[in-house]
Amino acid sequence: MTRGDDWRGVHASEFLQSLAAQLFLTRAHSQELAAPLSAEDQCVQAMEDASPTKWHLAHTTWFFERFILEPHLPGYEIFDPRFNFCFNSYYETQGARHPRPQRGLLTRPSANEVRAYRAHVDQGLHQIFAEAVSEDPQVASLLEIGVHHEQQHQELLLTDILALFSLSPLRPAWRELTIAPQGAATPLSWTSFDGGIVRAGHDGEGFGWDNEAPRHDTLLHPFRIANRLVTNGEWRAFMDDGGYTTATLWLADGWARVQGEGWRAPLYWHETDEGYAQMTLHGVQEIDPAAPVAHVSYFEADAYARWAGKRLPTEFEWEHAAAQSNANPNGARASGLFTPDAATGEGLSQMFGEVWQWTQSSYSPYPGYRPPEGAVGEYNGKFMVSQQVLRGSSCVTPQGHSRLTYRNFFYPWQRWQFMGLRLAEDA
Amino acid sequence: MTRGDDWRGVHASEFLQSLAAQLFLTRAHSQELAAPLSAEDQCVQAMEDASPTKWHLAHTTWFFERFILEPHLPGYEIFDPRFNFCFNSYYETQGARHPRPQRGLLTRPSANEVRAYRAHVDQGLHQIFAEAVSEDPQVASLLEIGVHHEQQHQELLLTDILALFSLSPLRPAWRELTIAPQGAATPLSWTSFDGGIVRAGHDGEGFGWDNEAPRHDTLLHPFRIANRLVTNGEWRAFMDDGGYTTATLWLADGWARVQGEGWRAPLYWHETDEGYAQMTLHGVQEIDPAAPVAHVSYFEADAYARWAGKRLPTEFEWEHAAAQSNANPNGARASGLFTPDAATGEGLSQMFGEVWQWTQSSYSPYPGYRPPEGAVGEYNGKFMVSQQVLRGSSCVTPQGHSRLTYRNFFYPWQRWQFMGLRLAEDA
Amino acid sequence: MTRGDDWRGVHASEFLQSLAAQLFLTRAHSQELAAPLSAEDQCVQAMEDASPTKWHLAHTTWFFERFILEPHLPGYEIFDPRFNFCFNSYYETQGARHPRPQRGLLTRPSANEVRAYRAHVDQGLHQIFAEAVSEDPQVASLLEIGVHHEQQHQELLLTDILALFSLSPLRPAWRELTIAPQGAATPLSWTSFDGGIVRAGHDGEGFGWDNEAPRHDTLLHPFRIANRLVTNGEWRAFMDDGGYTTATLWLADGWARVQGEGWRAPLYWHETDEGYAQMTLHGVQEIDPAAPVAHVSYFEADAYARWAGKRLPTEFEWEHAAAQSNANPNGARASGLFTPDAATGEGLSQMFGEVWQWTQSSYSPYPGYRPPEGAVGEYNGKFMVSQQVLRGSSCVTPQGHSRLTYRNFFYPWQRWQFMGLRLAEDA
Amino acid sequence: MTRGDDWRGVHASEFLQSLAAQLFLTRAHSQELAAPLSAEDQCVQAMEDASPTKWHLAHTTWFFERFILEPHLPGYEIFDPRFNFCFNSYYETQGARHPRPQRGLLTRPSANEVRAYRAHVDQGLHQIFAEAVSEDPQVASLLEIGVHHEQQHQELLLTDILALFSLSPLRPAWRELTIAPQGAATPLSWTSFDGGIVRAGHDGEGFGWDNEAPRHDTLLHPFRIANRLVTNGEWRAFMDDGGYTTATLWLADGWARVQGEGWRAPLYWHETDEGYAQMTLHGVQEIDPAAPVAHVSYFEADAYARWAGKRLPTEFEWEHAAAQSNANPNGARASGLFTPDAATGEGLSQMFGEVWQWTQSSYSPYPGYRPPEGAVGEYNGKFMVSQQVLRGSSCVTPQGHSRLTYRNFFYPWQRWQFMGLRLAEDA
Repeated sequence: MTRGDDWRGVHASEFLQSLAAQLFLTRAHSQELAAPLSAEDQCVQAMEDASPTKWHLAHTTWFFERFILEPHLPGYEIFDPRFNFCFNSYYETQGARHPRPQRGLLTRPSANEVRAYRAHVDQGLHQIFAEAVSEDPQVASLLEIGVHHEQQHQELLLTDILALFSLSPLRPAWRELTIAPQGAATPLSWTSFDGGIVRAGHDGEGFGWDNEAPRHDTLLHPFRIANRLVTNGEWRAFMDDGGYTTATLWLADGWARVQGEGWRAPLYWHETDEGYAQMTLHGVQEIDPAAPVAHVSYFEADAYARWAGKRLPTEFEWEHAAAQSNANPNGARASGLFTPDAATGEGLSQMFGEVWQWTQSSYSPYPGYRPPEGAVGEYNGKFMVSQQVLRGSSCVTPQGHSRLTYRNFFYPWQRWQFMGLRLAEDA
Repeated sequence: MTRGDDWRGVHASEFLQSLAAQLFLTRAHSQELAAPLSAEDQCVQAMEDASPTKWHLAHTTWFFERFILEPHLPGYEIFDPRFNFCFNSYYETQGARHPRPQRGLLTRPSANEVRAYRAHVDQGLHQIFAEAVSEDPQVASLLEIGVHHEQQHQELLLTDILALFSLSPLRPAWRELTIAPQGAATPLSWTSFDGGIVRAGHDGEGFGWDNEAPRHDTLLHPFRIANRLVTNGEWRAFMDDGGYTTATLWLADGWARVQGEGWRAPLYWHETDEGYAQMTLHGVQEIDPAAPVAHVSYFEADAYARWAGKRLPTEFEWEHAAAQSNANPNGARASGLFTPDAATGEGLSQMFGEVWQWTQSSYSPYPGYRPPEGAVGEYNGKFMVSQQVLRGSSCVTPQGHSRLTYRNFFYPWQRWQFMGLRLAEDA
Repeated sequence: MTRGDDWRGVHASEFLQSLAAQLFLTRAHSQELAAPLSAEDQCVQAMEDASPTKWHLAHTTWFFERFILEPHLPGYEIFDPRFNFCFNSYYETQGARHPRPQRGLLTRPSANEVRAYRAHVDQGLHQIFAEAVSEDPQVASLLEIGVHHEQQHQELLLTDILALFSLSPLRPAWRELTIAPQGAATPLSWTSFDGGIVRAGHDGEGFGWDNEAPRHDTLLHPFRIANRLVTNGEWRAFMDDGGYTTATLWLADGWARVQGEGWRAPLYWHETDEGYAQMTLHGVQEIDPAAPVAHVSYFEADAYARWAGKRLPTEFEWEHAAAQSNANPNGARASGLFTPDAATGEGLSQMFGEVWQWTQSSYSPYPGYRPPEGAVGEYNGKFMVSQQVLRGSSCVTPQGHSRLTYRNFFYPWQRWQFMGLRLAEDA
Repeated sequence: MTRGDDWRGVHASEFLQSLAAQLFLTRAHSQELAAPLSAEDQCVQAMEDASPTKWHLAHTTWFFERFILEPHLPGYEIFDPRFNFCFNSYYETQGARHPRPQRGLLTRPSANEVRAYRAHVDQGLHQIFAEAVSEDPQVASLLEIGVHHEQQHQELLLTDILALFSLSPLRPAWRELTIAPQGAATPLSWTSFDGGIVRAGHDGEGFGWDNEAPRHDTLLHPFRIANRLVTNGEWRAFMDDGGYTTATLWLADGWARVQGEGWRAPLYWHETDEGYAQMTLHGVQEIDPAAPVAHVSYFEADAYARWAGKRLPTEFEWEHAAAQSNANPNGARASGLFTPDAATGEGLSQMFGEVWQWTQSSYSPYPGYRPPEGAVGEYNGKFMVSQQVLRGSSCVTPQGHSRLTYRNFFYPWQRWQFMGLRLAEDA
């Protein structure tokens, strides 16, 4: 991505040292996430949108093997040539692959073999550094992509396990934990921003995906944005006011989905004798009225905003507000997953580390966008239609993976991710 | 929409006179379009996206009856109270309705009864003017909407008949006609436009849909746009170069569609012993290499642009280019349907009257957009997700229905409309 | 089928005279059935299982043209060569054909053109007799098959129109008629039959389909059979007793269907403010408790029988009981359709002319069954799996089309025919 | 089932001793079958028709717990009350249950927990005998049913694992083994049988399912039956002669299936560079032309028979021929699974122990059939529609589970069982 001695604005050797540290921490962290899961838990696919844990562990490993070790590490021995078929996700340029809806049928290789596969590739990655192959800027860039790619899959690993466990009559927990309610929510307030031309997108300093670039001018109209996320308690008021049964609140496609799938509450809420409860990574829990609502689709977020007389922000409004208020993607979250006091800027809280925030913006290329050359060019560009952008990050986003310019994207009906919303309005 | 004596910038009585003329011409034109069709042709539904001719004729009539005659014309007698169920399209506020996929099962009322229904409602509309009810600005506004609503359905009537006839082994023609090839296409050239803030959207002068407003600032980046549409001949080159079999040219959703539905050419092309031919409203015709390609989806348009090393314009680039080059929506098309010398601006041709032109812009609300109050508020806003904007107009768009600011919208996989493309690129 | 001067047990010339009469009466009767229907009514297909009236009229005509006129009438001119594609039903040997689910898309040829097609073919059929081509036993046999084939389609024409009209919000009537209730039903009684070897199947005297032959020995076990059909009133008691909500009454496949399609009553029953009413060929009518229940599937008939502590008869029990009690297929029904005093034997009533009666027998070949040579060999044999046999005939079976040995067959979930049941039990 | 001192024709205590032996051998055998499988292999469901190994192991255990230990063993403690929901298959009387298509989502309980569940229940079963509860004839009868029920699931366990492994790109083997070709097939010959009334069905001596009873008279017509099964080599000739592309060979439903699913060979055959190979429980193997063809549907078996100018036997022809030729269900198969020299009668070979043999008979109740009282009454009767009977047994049928009167049944399109065919014809 850059060349000469200066990479990403730091000296190359410093950058590589830090990259190596980040790489092996990330590799180890994936294993930690999988540690509480049995071999069976790691094998099964909850639904077509989700993937098995084992597949995530193997696919992220395949990425390093296929794009770095195989072409760049002299003498590297491929662990098992059949894995290219098994663990390619969607790279059309990388040959035929196992069909996505059948990922859960891969009982072989076993969880143990995948662990061995990971160790074998980690060995290779160590050699990449030991033999200074990493000094090739193209390799360094691929290593960095590989780290961020694996971090994405760490988040998916957790959302997919939640999807799986939510379908189990035994309602298992990924990790046992009792979550204390947060007390009252911060009162809702609004911060105003002027319109005008502002810069948006990634500036090339530090890592960013291709779809965050190029940094470019965009025109904002004056707007106001809420200081915090919509809460479970507020969502409950929407439900009690007939939110899920009032057609005129909904986009036409959304209403069809509500009726076709019988939506009546966020994805993981279910009725019990004592009212609603919520399936979580820690098993069934009470619903905390002060906590941000999670696992709602774009259709639901949009309907809620209409019900509240507001709208969702655009992705540029969100980014500008976050930048102006000095929201810090990694600030408050010292302890990794599930720290409730998530990242906060001046006046705006919960910008990161709680739930991904639906925006009104459809996922499109930025002016001047070009996908990278080669196989990684398939990474983001080919999904630029029919999806909506989400901004911020969630409570299961790995440390170091949040950015002001990050663009997450999902279809408007999807809701198994940790997704919520923040309101906005015209000023 | 406006008030006082001045409506739409003209004196009220003048406006009403012109509106009456336009109304009854439009009402009559719908009948002319249906005239070549048998009772059976008018009854059947080609597919779920399409509607029967008879349904179009009755639904547009129901619109006038339900929203104007029933509430505003004292003493008006409803033609048949059951028609509210039969001919409501999607207005959730107007009660239960016949399911869309079953519109083609309505053998009753007959084509003759629908004609009588139209006459009855036309009678009422005449009274609206005779009794000066039309001087109520709300009524006048609804009448104007009704005209434009019916014009939209005139276009759909034709696209839906083509869809129906294309599925008939007899390949009937709506009107018999032999179309002469156009000769060589104009050589492709490019017009450059500077970036900067420009105004876009409807300014309230003359009729416009809610979704075209408000007029607002938008920021353009420097771009170039093609002087004409992509031709059948150019499309054929794309096909011959493996366009439909090269995964990397396609959006992921598009590639899934190509494979799932076996797309190999535009919708109405089919192979014969002498090569490809094309089903049209005039029956099967040769494919004219110089004519604009039609009946391609957004997925196909996007893949073609990628193959050509270009991209599609945004809707604002299109609008700005059209405005700057004085493209005249109604200029060159004196004679109604199917005049090939379609509207042209300085340097840019084929902006109107050929095929709707896919843009890169997803269909979203303009800054400050508010849907109108009342039932007509369901008209445009509730479709603002997952669709792409098309600009211009087509050879089957009725006279007077084209505008620089017109926003048509369809799902990226749809292709039964007269849809094509014009290329653009960053300057 | 027969040879020498003796055909079907009568002298050939006598047989041919009678055949000609029957042929042209049948041809005319089809037209009469279609007479109350508009062009639109005749064109549309209610569902995949059903066909449009126009298609029935054309397909039965195609049968004569394709199998008799084209090969056997010198100088015959095919009416329109494209009709072989349009109106072939399922004869794999006769080339490619229009897909069944799209029969309702054939707006062309029009109802008028199909009438002309019928006249053209009738002309040819007259010549067949005038030029004595009919004396060729193979031709005579095909003519006879053609008559019975058209009679079958006459019944389907009516059941398919009912299916279509039942889906119309206007609930049209094929013919206006008010049906008076029948008064109290005959008290239920049981007739016993001994077991033993009996003969079953068609003996070659008069017309019979291939699937009714050969006449063969079959072994009965002692049984008792009800004197009449199950009534609407009895069915209502089954419903009120939770018949449609008690899983243990149902075959597993039936229960899945009940739940998947929300069955709660016979097909054409619907709830009104005054209780259930029934859609019929004469529009919506009250439900007569004494009349036989109609439009129930095999699954429902079987569940009812289990609820009643009985079972359905086998097809051989039915045939034997009918033969022993001298039930006369054509006796009491002088006046054609909808005569309620349907055919009756000694002690057993309603064997014919009310509703087809589901039997416990799956539709299988008789011992020694051979499909006929040639295209008509596709007629019955290729459906001999997964279907159940129904015996008797219905109120819409044409005069002369009922037989003691007639085997009708449908899938166990189908219920749009005039289908009901008679109970039986082991003696 | 019987009472007094004489059970099943032997003295009660003797019977119970043998039952106990059989029970615990069967329980242990299930574990042996699962032994080569990993936890993941045991968890995943290949398709909706199949179930996971773990589910088979738990469900058969639940059967003993639910129907025997819980109601009959005083002081028995239920292992986990949630398992009633998890491992009920289809017993409507036993309350709500986990949906069949989601059996593979049950990653919990783990394979280890299921093993513990089995041990816990085995403990209870030992007490049943120790405390002489087994002397209650109802309990003894349920124990016997439980054994045979588990044996059925042993066969399913293997067929379902094959289905799963066939979908794996790694093509794993359940047990590694290389199978030597059998040499030339026995020449085909035909044994004739007279017609007449014969007895069929189970006589109450030894165990039999409810659907095999009552023993009753049935009438046979003279027939001939093949001395052996149709071979792979013969099937290959059918394929090479266009068997899968000739519509007229097929039942209509079968032809639709051939085209819809692209059938071109038996289920587990696939083309390789050296011709066809076959996926088996021992991994990919060469196809032995002399071995019986396996994994063909009824549709295919029926089409093959038509191509060969023969037909399939009825189930009574099969049973009579087997009885007359003294075919011994358990004779030749001393060593359990996969012994190729399967059971043979005088003149007829391969009656048992190779592949289940499709018959022409639909699966219907025998005259006088009554399902047993209570929950086990749901066992067989509710499937008596739309399926075909298969006779004999297969190479994966457990020792002791084959009988002359055994009626297996599957839908005509199913082919993942070890299914083949033997030809017959009218004499």
